[in-house]
Amino acid sequence: MQTKSVDIIVLNGTVLTMDAQETLMMNGAVAIKGDKIVALGPADAFSEFKAKRIIDAHGGIIMPGLVNTHTHASMTCFRGLADDLPLMTWLNDYIFPAESKLDEERVYRGALLACAEMILSGITCFCDMYLFEDAVARAAKDAGMRAVVGEVLYDFPSPNYGPLEKGFAYTEMLIDKWKDDELINIAVEPHSTYLCAPDLLKRASILALKHDLPLVIHVSETRNEVDLIKDKYGLTPVGFLEDLGVLSPNLLACHCVVLTEEDISLLHRFNVKVSHNPESNMKLASGIAPIPELLKEGVCVGLGTDGCASNNNLDIFLEMDTAAKLHKVNTFDPTVMDARTVVRMSTMEGAKALGLGDVTGSLEIGKKADLIVIDTKKPHLVPMYNPYSHVVYAVKGSDVAASIINGKVVMEDGRLLTMDMDNVMEDLRKIAQQIRNGD
Amino acid sequence: MQTKSVDIIVLNGTVLTMDAQETLMMNGAVAIKGDKIVALGPADAFSEFKAKRIIDAHGGIIMPGLVNTHTHASMTCFRGLADDLPLMTWLNDYIFPAESKLDEERVYRGALLACAEMILSGITCFCDMYLFEDAVARAAKDAGMRAVVGEVLYDFPSPNYGPLEKGFAYTEMLIDKWKDDELINIAVEPHSTYLCAPDLLKRASILALKHDLPLVIHVSETRNEVDLIKDKYGLTPVGFLEDLGVLSPNLLACHCVVLTEEDISLLHRFNVKVSHNPESNMKLASGIAPIPELLKEGVCVGLGTDGCASNNNLDIFLEMDTAAKLHKVNTFDPTVMDARTVVRMSTMEGAKALGLGDVTGSLEIGKKADLIVIDTKKPHLVPMYNPYSHVVYAVKGSDVAASIINGKVVMEDGRLLTMDMDNVMEDLRKIAQQIRNGD
Repeated sequence: MQTKSVDIIVLNGTVLTMDAQETLMMNGAVAIKGDKIVALGPADAFSEFKAKRIIDAHGGIIMPGLVNTHTHASMTCFRGLADDLPLMTWLNDYIFPAESKLDEERVYRGALLACAEMILSGITCFCDMYLFEDAVARAAKDAGMRAVVGEVLYDFPSPNYGPLEKGFAYTEMLIDKWKDDELINIAVEPHSTYLCAPDLLKRASILALKHDLPLVIHVSETRNEVDLIKDKYGLTPVGFLEDLGVLSPNLLACHCVVLTEEDISLLHRFNVKVSHNPESNMKLASGIAPIPELLKEGVCVGLGTDGCASNNNLDIFLEMDTAAKLHKVNTFDPTVMDARTVVRMSTMEGAKALGLGDVTGSLEIGKKADLIVIDTKKPHLVPMYNPYSHVVYAVKGSDVAASIINGKVVMEDGRLLTMDMDNVMEDLRKIAQQIRNGD
Repeated sequence: MQTKSVDIIVLNGTVLTMDAQETLMMNGAVAIKGDKIVALGPADAFSEFKAKRIIDAHGGIIMPGLVNTHTHASMTCFRGLADDLPLMTWLNDYIFPAESKLDEERVYRGALLACAEMILSGITCFCDMYLFEDAVARAAKDAGMRAVVGEVLYDFPSPNYGPLEKGFAYTEMLIDKWKDDELINIAVEPHSTYLCAPDLLKRASILALKHDLPLVIHVSETRNEVDLIKDKYGLTPVGFLEDLGVLSPNLLACHCVVLTEEDISLLHRFNVKVSHNPESNMKLASGIAPIPELLKEGVCVGLGTDGCASNNNLDIFLEMDTAAKLHKVNTFDPTVMDARTVVRMSTMEGAKALGLGDVTGSLEIGKKADLIVIDTKKPHLVPMYNPYSHVVYAVKGSDVAASIINGKVVMEDGRLLTMDMDNVMEDLRKIAQQIRNGD
C-alpha cells in the first residue's frame, strides 16, 4: 500500500463539510497538501497517510472557516466611540469627522486588528468596503486572510483618492496590483444609490463585468433611503438598479432591509447575492431584513457583521445566533432559519455571495483549505446532541481553537501565528488616543 | 498611619460600581474582608492597605457580578436536544419526555454544569425554577454561587414530590433547611396562571409573604397563554393575579412578553419585578416584551437567560447585547436601551428583582463581595472609548478573567476553583447518552 504524503492532517473531530449533500462525519479527518484539501473522510481511512503536521481536534468540530460578507474592517478604530444615538448624530458628529482624518496608516492598523479579531473568532474570509483599500488588502495579506476588497466610490471627494475619476483609477490600480494574488480579490464598490449618481453606478457595473469581479453596494438599508430614492427616481433602490441594468449575478447587495415583493423577485430573477447584517441593522434601528422570504424565493444570502462601530464586534458566530433568533420572533415561527440553514449562510452561501463558491465555504477535495477547529471541551458546549445547533446557538467565537487559511495554519490554541497581537493592539490604542484628542 | 489588613484587593482596572450615582473609577481598586467589600476608590488611596491576596485586573474592567434573574439550570442536560421546532412539538415530543425521567442526581449534575458555565461567563447570582430544587441549591452551594431557588408548583403531579400538597411541604422543607445559608435563598415558585389553579396561587403568595421570600412565576410569555387565561377568567394573566391579590413587591414576573397598557401600570403600581429573557423569547418565537415601556413606567427589570434548552446558553453578556439591539430595532429608535441602562439591568436591577438589592448587584462598602474582572487585552476589546458600551456590545462571557462571590475567589484565569470541570462535563456526557437512549 502506497503512503500518501501530505502537509497537514486535521483529525479527531466531527466534520461538517457543508458540501451540497451536507455530509457529516462523526469521527472524521481532513488532509491538506499545499493550499488545497486533498482528502477527507472517516478517520480510519487515513491510516496510510503521512503528514508533516497533525492538528488534533480533541473530539471538537472541524468545519469550513466562516465568511463575513460585509464589513468595514478599519472601523475597529471607532469601536464604541459613540453608541445609542440617532443615526444622523452618530454619523455627522462622530463617524464622519473621525473618518475625515483617516490615512493609509490608520486604515492598515485598524484592518490588521480586525483581521486578528476575525481570525480568533473563526472567520477565514471577509469582504471589505472602505477608504484606502490597498492598505486593507495589505493587512489581510499580512494576516494570512482571504479577502475581497474594494475602494468605496461616491459622488463627493474621497479622503483617499480625491475626485471620483481618481477613484476609478485607484480601483483599476487595485485590480492590476492584486490580480494574481492567492488571497486577495478585488471588487468594484459603489457606496449606494443615494451617494452615487446613475453614471457612476453604470460605469462601476461595466468595470466589474469586464474583469468578472463582484460589484458590492449598500442597498435599501433604511426606510429613509428607500423614500429618498423613490422621491428622486420614482423607483425603489432595487428597481432603480434594474432600470440602470446593474442587477446581475455578480452584484452583492448589502443589507436589503426594506424590500418590496417586486424587489425580492427582481433579486431572484437576476441572481443577485444578498449580505444580511442583522446586528448592525438592529443596533442602528434600521429594521429587519425579510430573509426568510428571500431564502424561500431562492436568493443566495450570506451573513455579515458590518463595521464594528455599529455592532460592536466582528463575530459571525454572534450573527448566526442573532439571525436564527431574530427571524423566528419576527415571524412568530420557531421553525424558520433552522440551524443548518444558518450554518450554510455563514459558510457556503457566503462564499457564493462573494463569487468564491469554487474556492472556499465548504470542505471538499480540490478546494482551498480554509477551515477551523472548535474546542467543545467547555461547560457551555456540553452535552452535544446536534453539531449544527451547537454551532448556531451555543458555540462562541472564543471557542475556535485553530484556523487554517489557504493551507496555512494562522491560529492555533488561541494564538495568532501571523502577527504580534500585542503590538497590533498597542498601535490601535495609540490611534484611539489621537482620535479622542480630535487629531 | 495605620495599616489596614484585608483579605483581597482587586486593583488596576476601570471600576464600574453600578451604585446609585453610577460612580466610575478609571484606575480603581476594591478591598474585601471576609465576605464583604470594605473599601473602594482610586488605586492611590490603597497605599496603606495590606492584603493577603492581590488580584490584578491588568487594566481591564472590575464590575459587579452579573445576575441571571430567570433560569432552569439543570436543563443543560437538554442543551440542543431539539431546536427550530413548533413550541408544542418541542415540549411534548422532546422536553417533557426527557424531564419525566429526571431525578435528584441528574438535576444536581445538570445544575453543577450550569454553575460552571455561569461562573465562567461572569454570573455570580441566579434565580432558578425547576424540579428537585434541593439538588440545585446543593449544586450552587458546592459551586460557590449565590442563588435563589424554588421548587416549581403546579396542579398536576410532579416527578419530584408527587401531589401538590407535598409540593408545599417540600417548599417549606427548603425554607427551613436553607434559612441561615450565606449563599442560598429560597423562593416560592408557582409555575404560571395556566398551570396553577387560583387556590395554589393564593396559597403560594401567602407562604412567600409569611417568610418574606420572592414569589417567582411565569407571566404572559405567549399570546396563546394570554388568550387562554382571558377565555378562562376574563382577565389577562396580570389582571388575574391582581384579582387574586397576588401582585406585590416580592413578585418576580418572568417573561411579560404580551402585556396591555393596563398590565404595565398594574405591574408598576404594585412594584412587581420583571425578568426579561430576550433570547429565549426570540428562539421560541414568543414575541418581544415591551421593556422600554416598562422602564419608562419605572418598573424594575432584570435580565435572564431562561433554561439553556431554549437559548442555548446561560450567558448574560449575550442577553445584554441582544436586549440592547432588539428593542432598538423593534421601536425603530437607536437611543432606547442605552448601554448604561442595560448594564444596570444585568447587575443592580437584577439584584433588586430577586430581593437582594442590599446584598449584591453593585460595588459598595458593606455589600457582599460579588464581583468580576474582565480582561480587555484582546483584539475585540481594543480600543475602549466607553466601558459601558464595551460591556454591552463588545465583551463576551469568555473575557471574564476572575470571579469573586461572597468574598471567595471562585474563578481565576479562566479556571474554576470550586469544582473539577472535566468531571462535571464527563458526568453530563453520560447523562446525555442515557437521554439519547430514552433512559
